[in-house]
Amino acid sequence: MSYENEQLNEEKVFKDPVHRYVHVRDRIIWDLVGTPEFQRLRRVRQLGTSYLTFHGAEHSRFNHSLGVYEIVRRILDNFKDRPNWNKEQRILCLTAALLHDLGHGPFSHSFEKVFKLDHEDYTRAIILGDTNVNHILRRVDDDFPQKVADVINKTYEDKLVVSLISSQIDADRMDYLQRDAYFTGVSYGHFDMERILRVMRPMEDQVAVKESGMHAVEDYIMSRYQMYWQVYFHPVTRSAEVILTKILHRAKDLYESGYVFKFPPNHFVSFFEGNVDLQDYLKLDESVTLFYFQTWKEEEDRILSDLCERFINRHLFKYVEFNPNLQMSEWMELHKLFQKAGIDPDYYLVVDSSSDLPYDFYRPGEEGERLPIHLLLPNGELKELSRQSEIVEAISGKKRTDHKLYFPKDLIEGLSNRSKTKKRILEILYE
Amino acid sequence: MSYENEQLNEEKVFKDPVHRYVHVRDRIIWDLVGTPEFQRLRRVRQLGTSYLTFHGAEHSRFNHSLGVYEIVRRILDNFKDRPNWNKEQRILCLTAALLHDLGHGPFSHSFEKVFKLDHEDYTRAIILGDTNVNHILRRVDDDFPQKVADVINKTYEDKLVVSLISSQIDADRMDYLQRDAYFTGVSYGHFDMERILRVMRPMEDQVAVKESGMHAVEDYIMSRYQMYWQVYFHPVTRSAEVILTKILHRAKDLYESGYVFKFPPNHFVSFFEGNVDLQDYLKLDESVTLFYFQTWKEEEDRILSDLCERFINRHLFKYVEFNPNLQMSEWMELHKLFQKAGIDPDYYLVVDSSSDLPYDFYRPGEEGERLPIHLLLPNGELKELSRQSEIVEAISGKKRTDHKLYFPKDLIEGLSNRSKTKKRILEILYE
Amino acid sequence: MSYENEQLNEEKVFKDPVHRYVHVRDRIIWDLVGTPEFQRLRRVRQLGTSYLTFHGAEHSRFNHSLGVYEIVRRILDNFKDRPNWNKEQRILCLTAALLHDLGHGPFSHSFEKVFKLDHEDYTRAIILGDTNVNHILRRVDDDFPQKVADVINKTYEDKLVVSLISSQIDADRMDYLQRDAYFTGVSYGHFDMERILRVMRPMEDQVAVKESGMHAVEDYIMSRYQMYWQVYFHPVTRSAEVILTKILHRAKDLYESGYVFKFPPNHFVSFFEGNVDLQDYLKLDESVTLFYFQTWKEEEDRILSDLCERFINRHLFKYVEFNPNLQMSEWMELHKLFQKAGIDPDYYLVVDSSSDLPYDFYRPGEEGERLPIHLLLPNGELKELSRQSEIVEAISGKKRTDHKLYFPKDLIEGLSNRSKTKKRILEILYE
Amino acid sequence: MSYENEQLNEEKVFKDPVHRYVHVRDRIIWDLVGTPEFQRLRRVRQLGTSYLTFHGAEHSRFNHSLGVYEIVRRILDNFKDRPNWNKEQRILCLTAALLHDLGHGPFSHSFEKVFKLDHEDYTRAIILGDTNVNHILRRVDDDFPQKVADVINKTYEDKLVVSLISSQIDADRMDYLQRDAYFTGVSYGHFDMERILRVMRPMEDQVAVKESGMHAVEDYIMSRYQMYWQVYFHPVTRSAEVILTKILHRAKDLYESGYVFKFPPNHFVSFFEGNVDLQDYLKLDESVTLFYFQTWKEEEDRILSDLCERFINRHLFKYVEFNPNLQMSEWMELHKLFQKAGIDPDYYLVVDSSSDLPYDFYRPGEEGERLPIHLLLPNGELKELSRQSEIVEAISGKKRTDHKLYFPKDLIEGLSNRSKTKKRILEILYE
Repeated sequence: MSYENEQLNEEKVFKDPVHRYVHVRDRIIWDLVGTPEFQRLRRVRQLGTSYLTFHGAEHSRFNHSLGVYEIVRRILDNFKDRPNWNKEQRILCLTAALLHDLGHGPFSHSFEKVFKLDHEDYTRAIILGDTNVNHILRRVDDDFPQKVADVINKTYEDKLVVSLISSQIDADRMDYLQRDAYFTGVSYGHFDMERILRVMRPMEDQVAVKESGMHAVEDYIMSRYQMYWQVYFHPVTRSAEVILTKILHRAKDLYESGYVFKFPPNHFVSFFEGNVDLQDYLKLDESVTLFYFQTWKEEEDRILSDLCERFINRHLFKYVEFNPNLQMSEWMELHKLFQKAGIDPDYYLVVDSSSDLPYDFYRPGEEGERLPIHLLLPNGELKELSRQSEIVEAISGKKRTDHKLYFPKDLIEGLSNRSKTKKRILEILYE
Repeated sequence: MSYENEQLNEEKVFKDPVHRYVHVRDRIIWDLVGTPEFQRLRRVRQLGTSYLTFHGAEHSRFNHSLGVYEIVRRILDNFKDRPNWNKEQRILCLTAALLHDLGHGPFSHSFEKVFKLDHEDYTRAIILGDTNVNHILRRVDDDFPQKVADVINKTYEDKLVVSLISSQIDADRMDYLQRDAYFTGVSYGHFDMERILRVMRPMEDQVAVKESGMHAVEDYIMSRYQMYWQVYFHPVTRSAEVILTKILHRAKDLYESGYVFKFPPNHFVSFFEGNVDLQDYLKLDESVTLFYFQTWKEEEDRILSDLCERFINRHLFKYVEFNPNLQMSEWMELHKLFQKAGIDPDYYLVVDSSSDLPYDFYRPGEEGERLPIHLLLPNGELKELSRQSEIVEAISGKKRTDHKLYFPKDLIEGLSNRSKTKKRILEILYE
Repeated sequence: MSYENEQLNEEKVFKDPVHRYVHVRDRIIWDLVGTPEFQRLRRVRQLGTSYLTFHGAEHSRFNHSLGVYEIVRRILDNFKDRPNWNKEQRILCLTAALLHDLGHGPFSHSFEKVFKLDHEDYTRAIILGDTNVNHILRRVDDDFPQKVADVINKTYEDKLVVSLISSQIDADRMDYLQRDAYFTGVSYGHFDMERILRVMRPMEDQVAVKESGMHAVEDYIMSRYQMYWQVYFHPVTRSAEVILTKILHRAKDLYESGYVFKFPPNHFVSFFEGNVDLQDYLKLDESVTLFYFQTWKEEEDRILSDLCERFINRHLFKYVEFNPNLQMSEWMELHKLFQKAGIDPDYYLVVDSSSDLPYDFYRPGEEGERLPIHLLLPNGELKELSRQSEIVEAISGKKRTDHKLYFPKDLIEGLSNRSKTKKRILEILYE
Repeated sequence: MSYENEQLNEEKVFKDPVHRYVHVRDRIIWDLVGTPEFQRLRRVRQLGTSYLTFHGAEHSRFNHSLGVYEIVRRILDNFKDRPNWNKEQRILCLTAALLHDLGHGPFSHSFEKVFKLDHEDYTRAIILGDTNVNHILRRVDDDFPQKVADVINKTYEDKLVVSLISSQIDADRMDYLQRDAYFTGVSYGHFDMERILRVMRPMEDQVAVKESGMHAVEDYIMSRYQMYWQVYFHPVTRSAEVILTKILHRAKDLYESGYVFKFPPNHFVSFFEGNVDLQDYLKLDESVTLFYFQTWKEEEDRILSDLCERFINRHLFKYVEFNPNLQMSEWMELHKLFQKAGIDPDYYLVVDSSSDLPYDFYRPGEEGERLPIHLLLPNGELKELSRQSEIVEAISGKKRTDHKLYFPKDLIEGLSNRSKTKKRILEILYE
């Protein structure tokens, strides 16, 4: 039998709190899970700095990747004998589902921003490069790694396959909403996935949902909306994110300015220099990052050591609402006042903005990948969700943005009580 | 108002997946949670190597410590106006509950074994030494840190207070059973804690449980039994534990023999030399440990690098049942055969034994701290649980032990197929 | 001690699947639960005919009434020491919560419609009349029954008290959404009640919710929306409701026309004659109703016996979407065709309309009782929910209506296949 | 296609709170669910009088029957391609699972005891008699009804098929433990059914469980043990049962003695006379029974009316522990004292005994149907569960019995306070 179709002697299972069990029958899936590149995802948290807000959110991307695989497995069990479905795509779908987040590094959001990286590039690099994952994929076929990369990259020709992993109602989102709700413990994030899976139907170039399941989909969309604002954009999480970003900036700046680190930042050098190769990238996980942050707490540079101390000991910045458009003059005055008080505003006065679009219909030529969700009517027609659901219509295309200004309240309060600078800063912040 | 009684302006809550919310009203609790020593518990997993078996088990001791605090808080709310209860012990109980695991280091079990440490000593040292925690506790009273240490150490005079934190049905166990079940996802670990809390009654020198709650207690005992064998002693978890222990042994041996590490083991030196001071201890957490293991993968020493590679990439040892009493000769023959095959048996042929006593009645002079659970009968008498419950009687005092032999199956299979040594090893292992 | 403040020797609890335990400490609550009038609620289902759609929905109004009491009890525990809260209202609130649905009869919706009754009148009558409930309430004070009735009637002067039981976010709704979700098994109906209770604040004339809890309230509103359309207005439930209503109509018509029942409808006579006294009303519960329906299955009158057979054996009507405004001519033609086919359209061709307004802001002079939900801002101001929440704004004030036409598909299919009438009926129905 | 293999055009589902969804694809199952005989199970509670103790326990046998069917369906999905499994038995298994409780009447336990009936006889009678169920089953084959009856009766030749429905770990028990736990709200009743289903293997004459699933089975056995003592044998439930039994006895005695009922007990006559035919039996459900109890509240006979009032208004008997072997003389004295006080001891002084054997190994020639659970070892051997599991061994074969004495405390307290009889009664009861 070909490797693609090889089955394990006995089904293996992973105990999973969200899906109860993750079932593996295919040899290739089992082999991929065993690679160092996949095991590395155990050392990268799914929700970055959220564990500093929700202490249960310590779950890893390893967790989530298995979950997405499991959802796709269940969808395909249901598709098995349906029209429009080509069974030969099965292993490709499962593999792409399992590996779709393979390139995530530690605290991806901040790292990507500071070092101008894109985790999707690394996912591709791991799949196509000289790695254990690649060697396993090639056992199917020399072209197979490229196909897997194309699916994850959304460039694969069969759009139905792509839509399982990347659409507005894909296995990725369905897993993370439920998983992140479970581990944070919030009561959002529940929707009837079993029902959604049961009413999904393979269509020519996408997955559609039978109209009878519309309410379950509405519930999923609302769930997503709540998770974004209640969990993913939680202001305390963003405070930790702000500090983390500033640590990376500071370390880079110091390196570039020739600062001599007590503890040389070997693992970071290629990041600072902008020439990260795959091996460097794979070595950096969250335990390595936290190790450096702990040692940097003892660096001479006061900004670096202060920021690291804050991150490690969860001694975070406070925040106020801030509208960068309306409050530009306040911002500029604060900037000056911080400088005057000896608190470097580049590191200690930070505006962070988050925005989310809960659902969007299709806008040709604008945001190509935001494929809308289609309902399959009893008469066989497809109808875009927001045209059928009042609830979804009400929020469709409505982007919501939130701006907050972050700053170290303790440092400001530490200023002399007589200081006019302090008084003025507090006036502006808490007017 | 005294610091001991100081309340926060507004109650703070932590979202907790197990207890829904952890409620904090006392200033001192809030201050203690904010110390670097307590925040460090975020970087120590509650279940050590279990995450390599149950991928959800990535939760930290920070999680659990808050949980134990919350359970004690609920118990005391119920005790408030009851006879036998001295309200002045409230803050002492809450503080001891919160801090009871403060001295746990990374992968405690292995570290304690290899370096002859005891995490309880470090809990005391942190509470009594020159730490942020100590400074906060002293604000209550100069004697207060000692009192807290005594409660945790079970030497405090008021045995009722001690029994809340350390008995066969204490807040510690009730939290970890439920928490570990939640994060691993197993279906054991459920019992009706709300009911148990409602029927707990403060007695002169212990907490008793009203007889009407006996079945809830039985359920708790069975839950504990199942969690030990299904989760805590899972053979795969122990395999990872075996490898971890051997890594520490190897590193220590190499250090003692003057081996020059490519990457100097600074954080470990005092451990190797047996003179760990509090500051060294506090610096070592799981991210630091994993950082070293990753760098040691690239050491020259083949045993150290192999073991680290195994741990990091979850490339674990296999196991078979093994009875060290009956199978001594097999063991000795295996030992020789491993040596002959060039696989150092000191590192690659390991017997691991686990044993548990699900519940025990009181055996004077034998196991002092195993205080039995007492039921409070309607007539006011106390009766030891196993004398009333047939289920508990059936398992009471019955120690169960399990021995397994761990070895690297892949190395053995890598030996030449013609080798008689290999053949003989496999014969003994899988006879 | 006064009866109002009398406590039980020991707290009593009811095991409740939704709130885990319902706690009773007050003697008066315990006594009220024990009255025949309250126990009667065990024989009235909470969701009427829904059990024919969701087989788990067999729970009674007894269940729900205890749940509403428990939620109010928890709210008041939280209000205890807050400004604006008058502790003396405690027993009044708890009592009104417990008794608010006391006047519900069997399958209230249909009975009220056919016999022009109002369950709220009977709630008042039970509280104020010569009943065990009234005798217990009078032990507090001669005025007390009237106060309880006023709270339930929303005419009580203290609007804060009223708003606990009747507002757009009251204990009644919070209980039934969760309870009905639990027993039907649907995945809607979850929201973070614990959080909502924690952020509720007593204000001068209403309960407000701290702004920080807005998202939990949004989730509750969405939950309500989904429950209405997925559960309460489920078309199959409405089919059973249609049949039930027609049974009552037919029995009344027969009685009025002097028909001689094989089994005399003693329990129904006063309903048919429009002079139901309290004792008659209290005797009628769902077991009595179902008893009659079973015996009526064997009546000579073919319409009555057919409808009863349909209800008892769940042999329901089918349905199609139907717009009574646009499809008037089809309706008239169908009516004639049914007559021609010998299927009495008064009983077998029924339009049922359901409509819901998920949330509404205040419209003075229009719908007095729909008090809007107010958020309490950090600065102490109140702000109406839909002005702060985009999601709620999107659905606020938007009434949704659904019309369906119900008919016995089996009877139509039973017509001769050559019949043009049949053909035409099917054409209109399934065009 | 034969009726046996006929599939529905589209899968139908029932929303089920316990198994999430019950899936139906086979036409015959759908048809059977629609019969009046099966729909009648909606009007028979699964747990008889338990709803008077646990208000959530209002679920019907309809619920449970669908649940058992669903579990068998899942087991067979897993058996599909395994050795020892004969696919042709599929519809037989599903049908027997669905119909196994079809003969249950209202409050079966009491009715069977008083009227010397056996619900299993009626299950057979419904399957084999002239019923809608029988007509459907005959569409498969003239022999098919008999086969279904044989499976339910445990006389079917293929013991593997029988063991799915009736063994110590069958679909029946797995459903009711979970379902009854869900609706009562107790925290017992949880076990990892998904795991058990996954490790079940068809063997020659029984279902065995792979040894790796032993702990899940232990958990199931403990769950069963707790449910028996915490729910099924709850003393309050038994109090209601005692009263119910006495009502039936009294009504029968009155009938036999020629008493003229105000409301003639037509539905009961054949029960009183011992000649119940199938049609009489099918007409009696719990709504009918409760209807009579309500009318009998107003009978002249004071015992009948008092007992009915007690049952309807949940005005139950109290109880004390009572050992009929040791306390015979107290019993006799009480008997006399009750008579003296004018409280008929035949109706008002009742000993109720409950006993349960949580698990039993095989005892040849003794209790034929208690087939033990067998573990399937890796080497293919079968081993009886209690020989492998210490926990199960500890409770295996240990019958536990509980005796309670029930009496109307209110009547005794109503006796004159000076009465010596009253004093003596209370002395004996509460010594």
